[in-house]
Amino acid sequence: MVGATDQTLRPFLWRAEKLFSDREIVSRTHEGITRYDYAEYGDRVAQLAGALDGAGVEAGDRVATFCWNHHRHFETYFGIPSIGAQLHTINPLLPDHHIQHIVSDAEDVVVFVDPSLAEKLASAVAAEGGEEAFESVEQFVLMGDESVLPDESPLEPLTDYESFIADESTEYDWPDVSEDAPAGMCYTSGTTGAPKGVEYTQQMLWAHTMATLPQAGLDIGADDVLMPVVPMFHVNAWGMPFSTTAAGAKHVYPGPAPDPADLATLIEEEGVTLTAGVPTVWLGLLEYLEENDADISSLERIVIGGSAAPQSVIRRFDEEYDVDVLHAWGMTEMSPIGTVSHLKPGMEDLPAEEQYAKRAKQGLFVPGLEFTVVGEDGSEIEWDGEAFGELWVRGPWVTTDYFQRPEANEEDFEEGWLKTGDVVTVDPEGYIQIVDRAKDVIKSGGEWISSVELENALMAHDDVSEATVVGVPHERWQERPVAFVVPKQGVDQDVLTDELLAMVKDEFPKWWAPDDVLFIEEIPKTATGKFSKKDLREEYADESLVAGKAPESKE
Amino acid sequence: MVGATDQTLRPFLWRAEKLFSDREIVSRTHEGITRYDYAEYGDRVAQLAGALDGAGVEAGDRVATFCWNHHRHFETYFGIPSIGAQLHTINPLLPDHHIQHIVSDAEDVVVFVDPSLAEKLASAVAAEGGEEAFESVEQFVLMGDESVLPDESPLEPLTDYESFIADESTEYDWPDVSEDAPAGMCYTSGTTGAPKGVEYTQQMLWAHTMATLPQAGLDIGADDVLMPVVPMFHVNAWGMPFSTTAAGAKHVYPGPAPDPADLATLIEEEGVTLTAGVPTVWLGLLEYLEENDADISSLERIVIGGSAAPQSVIRRFDEEYDVDVLHAWGMTEMSPIGTVSHLKPGMEDLPAEEQYAKRAKQGLFVPGLEFTVVGEDGSEIEWDGEAFGELWVRGPWVTTDYFQRPEANEEDFEEGWLKTGDVVTVDPEGYIQIVDRAKDVIKSGGEWISSVELENALMAHDDVSEATVVGVPHERWQERPVAFVVPKQGVDQDVLTDELLAMVKDEFPKWWAPDDVLFIEEIPKTATGKFSKKDLREEYADESLVAGKAPESKE
Repeated sequence: MVGATDQTLRPFLWRAEKLFSDREIVSRTHEGITRYDYAEYGDRVAQLAGALDGAGVEAGDRVATFCWNHHRHFETYFGIPSIGAQLHTINPLLPDHHIQHIVSDAEDVVVFVDPSLAEKLASAVAAEGGEEAFESVEQFVLMGDESVLPDESPLEPLTDYESFIADESTEYDWPDVSEDAPAGMCYTSGTTGAPKGVEYTQQMLWAHTMATLPQAGLDIGADDVLMPVVPMFHVNAWGMPFSTTAAGAKHVYPGPAPDPADLATLIEEEGVTLTAGVPTVWLGLLEYLEENDADISSLERIVIGGSAAPQSVIRRFDEEYDVDVLHAWGMTEMSPIGTVSHLKPGMEDLPAEEQYAKRAKQGLFVPGLEFTVVGEDGSEIEWDGEAFGELWVRGPWVTTDYFQRPEANEEDFEEGWLKTGDVVTVDPEGYIQIVDRAKDVIKSGGEWISSVELENALMAHDDVSEATVVGVPHERWQERPVAFVVPKQGVDQDVLTDELLAMVKDEFPKWWAPDDVLFIEEIPKTATGKFSKKDLREEYADESLVAGKAPESKE
Repeated sequence: MVGATDQTLRPFLWRAEKLFSDREIVSRTHEGITRYDYAEYGDRVAQLAGALDGAGVEAGDRVATFCWNHHRHFETYFGIPSIGAQLHTINPLLPDHHIQHIVSDAEDVVVFVDPSLAEKLASAVAAEGGEEAFESVEQFVLMGDESVLPDESPLEPLTDYESFIADESTEYDWPDVSEDAPAGMCYTSGTTGAPKGVEYTQQMLWAHTMATLPQAGLDIGADDVLMPVVPMFHVNAWGMPFSTTAAGAKHVYPGPAPDPADLATLIEEEGVTLTAGVPTVWLGLLEYLEENDADISSLERIVIGGSAAPQSVIRRFDEEYDVDVLHAWGMTEMSPIGTVSHLKPGMEDLPAEEQYAKRAKQGLFVPGLEFTVVGEDGSEIEWDGEAFGELWVRGPWVTTDYFQRPEANEEDFEEGWLKTGDVVTVDPEGYIQIVDRAKDVIKSGGEWISSVELENALMAHDDVSEATVVGVPHERWQERPVAFVVPKQGVDQDVLTDELLAMVKDEFPKWWAPDDVLFIEEIPKTATGKFSKKDLREEYADESLVAGKAPESKE
C-alpha cells in the first residue's frame, strides 16, 4: 500500500512546541494582556483535550465557540480537532434565529462562550425555539476564570474555562486522526435562506495552512508577529492561527471589539509585522493614525480581504507608512484563501499608479488551486480584463458540498467546481478582479454594470467616508445604479454630488453613472461587517428614486 | 461526503502555464542552450502525453528516464504523472546489474535515454540477464532529434524524442488522477543488497512541493531562478522542478556533466538566484572562482544536501560571495526534504562563528513532519546536543514502505515511522545534527565516535581537499578510527598529519583521534557521489593498519 502519514493539524502544534517553545502568544481579553509561550500553550491544549474527554466529547462530535479573538479561543483551535472532534466557530453577530438554526443543524455538544457575548447567546437560548435548538448542548463554558460566572444564567450547565481545564494533565495521548475527519466548520451568512454549513477536513486545513506560508501566499516566517483582526469566527480568522503556528511565529490576539487605538497599541507594543482584516478596519486605523501619534513601524504587511480593498488604502499605507497591503480574496467555502495580489517579476519597475492598480485587483491564484471563469454563454471568457463571467474554483482546500443541504449543493457546485457567485474579469497577466457579486451586478439595458467598480471610484474621493451602489428596478432599463454615500463631516453635499458624478463619467462608460447620489449617515452592515445591499435595496426599492425624487434620508 | 479536490501535480503546471506563461525554462544539452517559456513547455508536455498514449502507456504504468538535467527530462516530470502513469528516474551511475534489477523490478514500459548515456544503458541491456530484465520495455526514446539516432543499437525499438512527440496535439484532455496514484519512483542505492524502490504518490509530491516553498523550506518565489545541479534522477532533483513550477519561477538545467565553469557561466548568464547540489560540487565551484573571473552576484542561496556541508564552505560562500548556504537533509524515502538549517529569530545577533556552527547542522524540521530520536535503550534521547540516537521520521511526504520488499519494510519502518539509519544529536533549540550513519558510527571501547564530526574537522583544514574517517576492526577496542585524506597539491604530508592530529585532539575527546592518517589520491565515491566508506573499508580492512604500518597508498 503506497502512501505516507495523514495530513493533520497536530504536527504543526507539535513542531511549534518543540522547536519554538519560547515564542509568544499574546492576548487581550477582559482580564488585560495575557502572555505565554508555545510550551505553555501546548500544556493548556492538552488540558483542554482532557477536559473535553471528561465532558464526554468524542471523535466526530461538534464543539462550538462563540468568541472573539483571544488565547483561549486559540486553544480550542488545536484542542478540539486534535481529539478528532470538530471545531465549529459561530458568528455571534448573527440574529438569534440564525444562531438557533446553526447550533441545531450542527448538533453542537459543548459551546465555549465569551463573557461579553454570554448575554447575546442567552438571548438565542431563551428566544422561542431556543430550548429545542440547543437540545444537543451538554455543557456551556465561559471564557475566563470562576470570577466570570454569573449567579444564574439560561446557559446550563455552565462552568468557566479555567475550572474546566484546571485538573487535567498537561500531557495527552493524542489519537491518530484521519486526514478525512472533519476538523472545522463554519456557516456562511447566506444573503438568502438559512446559513449553510461548510465543513473543513483535517486535510483541507492542512493544505490551506501550507498554501498560506509561501511568498505566493502570505509569506509567513518564524520571525513574523501575526495579529488577526479578522474574527476567529470568520473562516478561522482566514486560517491565520494555524498558519502562525505552522511557521512558529508569534501570535497577537486583539480580543473583544478592538478599536483603532487598541490595534495601534498592540502593533507598537508587540512588534506586529503582519495583520489582517476587512477594509473598514484599516480605514479606521488610517483615520486614527492621522490624528494620533503611534509608531507602527514594525508593521510590514496588511492582508485585506472580506471585501475589496480601495486602491486609495493600498496607496496610503504604502506611501505614508511603508506597509504593503496584500489584497486577498477567498470564501468560507475555500478555507478561505484563493487569491493574493502580489506583483509579478518585473512589475516593480512599473509606474507607481500602475502597481497600485494591479494590487487593487483581487490578484493571482495561489499554487494548488484551479479556476475558470464562465461567461453568460457558458464558455470560458477571454483574459482581456474586460469580459465578465462567474468565477468557478476547485482545489484541495475548496469544499465540494454543504453540510446537509442537497438543494444548495445542486445550485452551487458542478463537477467538482465551486460556483463562487462572484463576477470577475481576468486580465492578460491572470489577475482576477471582482466586478460584482452575481446578484449585485446591475443589469441595465442589456449590459452589465459593476457596482463594485463604481463604489471603489466613489470611495477614492477624499470627502467620502463610505459608499455603495445598488441596482434599483427601472421600467425601461430593467435596473439603474443608485449611489449611497456617507460623506465626511462638514462636506457640502451638492458640490460633492457634482464632483462624484463628473468623476464617474470620466472613468466609466456614460451610462454607468448613477441616476442618483443619496447621502446617508451609515451604510447598513451584514453580520460579517460587509455593506448590506439587501437592506439598502429593501429600504430604497422604489422606482421613483431614479426619477430624482428626494427620499427621506436625503435632506 | 466531506472533502475537496485531490492533491495532484497538474494544477501546478496549469497555474504556471496560465499565470507565468512567459517565464523561461533554460536548458544546456548536447545541442547547446535551449530556451522556451511555460506556454511552450505546456504545449510540449501535452504532446508528450499524447505520444505516451500512442505508445500504449496507461495509467498505473511505469515509465523510466535515464537522463541528466535538461528540458526534455523536465517535460517527463509533468507529462508522465499527469496521465496517471509513474515517472521512474533511474540513476545512470549504477552498475549494470543494479540497473537490470531496477528496470525488471519496476517493469518499466518506456525508457527515455540521453544520447550520452545510451552506451551505458546499452551495456546493461547487452549484459548477461539484460534481455530478461528489459523484457517489459516496449519503447526506448533518445533525448534529442533524429540526428541522435545511431545506425544500430541494442536499445530496441528506438526512436528520438522530437519524432516521438512531433505529430501530437498541443492540447490534451487530462484525466482526473487520484491523489493516491503513484506518480514517481526512485530507487535508493542501498549500501547492502539490491536497490529498494520508493514510490511517491501524487499527494506525497504535492505535499513535498508545498513544503519546499515557504521560508522554513527553501523560500521560493516567482522572481527566483532555480538551477538544480543535483541530478534529476536523484529524488527528483530534491523536488526542485516541481517547486520551481509551483512558484512560477524560472528553471535552469545544467545538462550532462556540468563542470564548475559551466555552472559559473549559467549562474552569470541566466541570473540564477537559487541552486542546489552535494558539497563536492560547491567545493569545486569555490576552487574555480578562486582562479577565474566570474560574476555570481545574482546568486542568493545554495541548497547543500546529500552529505554534510562543511562549515568552511558555508562561511566562504557567505563572506566571499554573500551567498547563504541552506544546509538541508533528507532521504529518498522522504521525497526528500526533512530539515533545512535556518537561523531562528534572534540568532542573527549571535557572533558569526556561532551562526555558522548552527547553520552547519542539518537544521530544523520543516512544518508538516514529526520526528523522534531513539537512543540505544529504545527511549527518546535528551535534546542536549550531546546524546546520540537514531532519527525516526513520519509525515505526509515520508513513505511508509518499500516497493515489493516486505523484509526491508520489516526492518526500516515501525508503526508508521521511517527509521532513517542516521545517528543524530538534537540541541536544545531543536537543531538536528547527523553524527553518523548507524552503520558508520565507530564503536570504540563501549563509546560511540562520530566519523562525520571527525571528517568535518579534517576538511576544515586549508590543505585538505577531501577527507573521510572509517572504523577499522581492532582486537582490543572493537573498532578504531582511521582517516583517509586527499591533500591539496604540494602539501607536506608529515606536517599535515601532525597538524590534523593536533587539531582533532584539541576539539574532541582524546580517544576520538584517528589511529592513523592515510593519504590517498581520491576517495572512492558511490553512484550518488557520496564517499564510499564501504569500498574504503573493504580495501583497508586490515587490523595491521592501526598498528601504524604503512599501506601501499601511503608513500
